[in-house]
Amino acid sequence: MSTHAFDEAVALQPQADGTFLGHTSAAYANMVGPFGGITAAQALNAALLHPQRLGDPISLTVNFAAAVADGPFSVIARPARTNRSTQHWVLEIQQEGQTVLTGTAFFGLRRDTWGVDEQPMPQVPGPVDVARAAGRASVEWVKRYEMRFAEGPIPNDWNGQDQGTSRTRLWLRDDPPRPLDFASLTALSDVFFPRVWRRRPVFVPIGTVSMSIYFHADAAQLQATGEGHLLGQTQAQAFRNGYFDQTAQLWNEAGQLLVTTHQVVYYKE
Amino acid sequence: MSTHAFDEAVALQPQADGTFLGHTSAAYANMVGPFGGITAAQALNAALLHPQRLGDPISLTVNFAAAVADGPFSVIARPARTNRSTQHWVLEIQQEGQTVLTGTAFFGLRRDTWGVDEQPMPQVPGPVDVARAAGRASVEWVKRYEMRFAEGPIPNDWNGQDQGTSRTRLWLRDDPPRPLDFASLTALSDVFFPRVWRRRPVFVPIGTVSMSIYFHADAAQLQATGEGHLLGQTQAQAFRNGYFDQTAQLWNEAGQLLVTTHQVVYYKE
Repeated sequence: MSTHAFDEAVALQPQADGTFLGHTSAAYANMVGPFGGITAAQALNAALLHPQRLGDPISLTVNFAAAVADGPFSVIARPARTNRSTQHWVLEIQQEGQTVLTGTAFFGLRRDTWGVDEQPMPQVPGPVDVARAAGRASVEWVKRYEMRFAEGPIPNDWNGQDQGTSRTRLWLRDDPPRPLDFASLTALSDVFFPRVWRRRPVFVPIGTVSMSIYFHADAAQLQATGEGHLLGQTQAQAFRNGYFDQTAQLWNEAGQLLVTTHQVVYYKE
Repeated sequence: MSTHAFDEAVALQPQADGTFLGHTSAAYANMVGPFGGITAAQALNAALLHPQRLGDPISLTVNFAAAVADGPFSVIARPARTNRSTQHWVLEIQQEGQTVLTGTAFFGLRRDTWGVDEQPMPQVPGPVDVARAAGRASVEWVKRYEMRFAEGPIPNDWNGQDQGTSRTRLWLRDDPPRPLDFASLTALSDVFFPRVWRRRPVFVPIGTVSMSIYFHADAAQLQATGEGHLLGQTQAQAFRNGYFDQTAQLWNEAGQLLVTTHQVVYYKE
C-alpha cells in the first residue's frame, strides 16, 4: 500500500527543540506557493502530533502572513494553557526565521450532551448523480480533490456580470479517497474557490488572510464518515474595499454537520 | 465631559518592556470574571495602540483560555509580520504569568474596490418601535448596553422546550451612547446571549472558547455610524457534545453590514 499524497504532505519531523520540520508538497501546489488548506493542515498537525496534546480539535484559526516558499518550514506549536479537559494552542509556521503563518487552536475532551443540527443539509442530488468537474485544473492541488458541483460551479464565462449570489454547493472528497481525519477535514474546509469569482466572474487576484474552522465532528464521526463524500456549501456575506468573507458548512452523506468554517479573503479591484 | 465606562475599561498603560497593563472593569463584570467582549476589546486595543501599528483591523480571533480574575492583567501584542499594506498580530493576555487569552489579528490598509453586501439587513421595525428589554439585569455588563429585541429575546420561561430555531434579532448600542470604534464594535460583537438558551430554554452553564470577528467597516463607516443603533442577528448552526457555534451579523441603521462574527461556545448538559 503506497502512502497517500495527503499523508506525505502533512508529515512533520519532531526536532530536538520541540518544533516540527515540514516540507511543502508539489502535489498540493497552488499558483504561488502551496494550497492554503494544506498549510492549515500542517499547522494543525503539529498540535495533533505534540506529546502534550489533550483531546481533539474543537476550533482552529490560521492567518496566512506571507507566501509560503517551496521548501522546508518549521512549525511551532505551544500549549499556552492546559486545563482539566481543554487546551489552548498557539501555532506559527516559519521559513528562514520569518513568520509565514500565525494561528491558534482549541482542543477539548467531549462529553455526551443534548444536541441538534440547526443548519440542515441542503437538498441536492446525490454524489453519483452530479457530474464530476472536468476541465483542465490550472493548479496542481485541485487534482487532489474530487469535486461535483450541484450549484455554482467555477465560471467558464468570465463576463463580469453580477450573479446576484455567491452560493456554491458541491460534493467533495480526497482523490484518491482517504479516510477522513482532522487534518484532512481542515484542508477540505479550504477547497472552495473564492466567492468573489462566483458573485462577479472577473478573474481578480485573491488570497485568504484568515480562516477559522469549528469542528462539530468528533473522532468517531470522522471514522464513521470514512471515505464518503462530503456536501459543501459556501457563500459570502459582504465584499468591500479589498476584502470579502466566506462562510461554509460541510456535511457527511448521513447529513451530519461536521464543520462550519469562515474566512476573510483579500481581493484586488 | 466625564469619561465613558467603555473607555475606562479598555484603557491600557504601555510598559517599558513593550507590553500593556490593563485592569478589569467592575462596570463590565459578568457572572464569573469580566464580559468576554470587553476582554476581546482590551486585547485588540493593544494592537490599536501599538507604535508599530499599520492600518485598521480586518479580522480578530480571541480564545478564552481561563477565567480572567478581577484585577490587573498584561497584554502582549506582537507584530509577527508586517508587509507593505498588511500586518499580522499575535495577542496574549496574562495574569500572574499565566495565559488567560490567546489571539491573532490581521490589520490592513484598505483601497476602493468593487463591492456589494450579499447578506441583506433583515426587515424589522426600527429601534424606536421595539421595546427596550426591561427586567433585572442579572449581571453588571448587560446594563452597559441598550438592547431592543425584535425577535428571540432572552427566555422568561425556562421550560426546556425545543424552540425549533436559535435566531435572535435585536437593536443594540452602548448605554450611554458612544461613537462607534473598532474596540467598541469588538465588544458589541459578543453581546448576544448564548444560542443554547434560545434554542432550548435550559439555564445551562456556558462559556465562549473562541471568537472571530471580520470587520467589513472601515474607520469612515464607523464614524458615519456614530452613536446610532446597530441591528444584530445571530443564530447557531450546530449543538453537539458540549460545544455549539454562533454566527452573527451587525448592520448600522443605514443597512451597511459592519461586522460578521462567529464563536464556538462550551455548554454543559
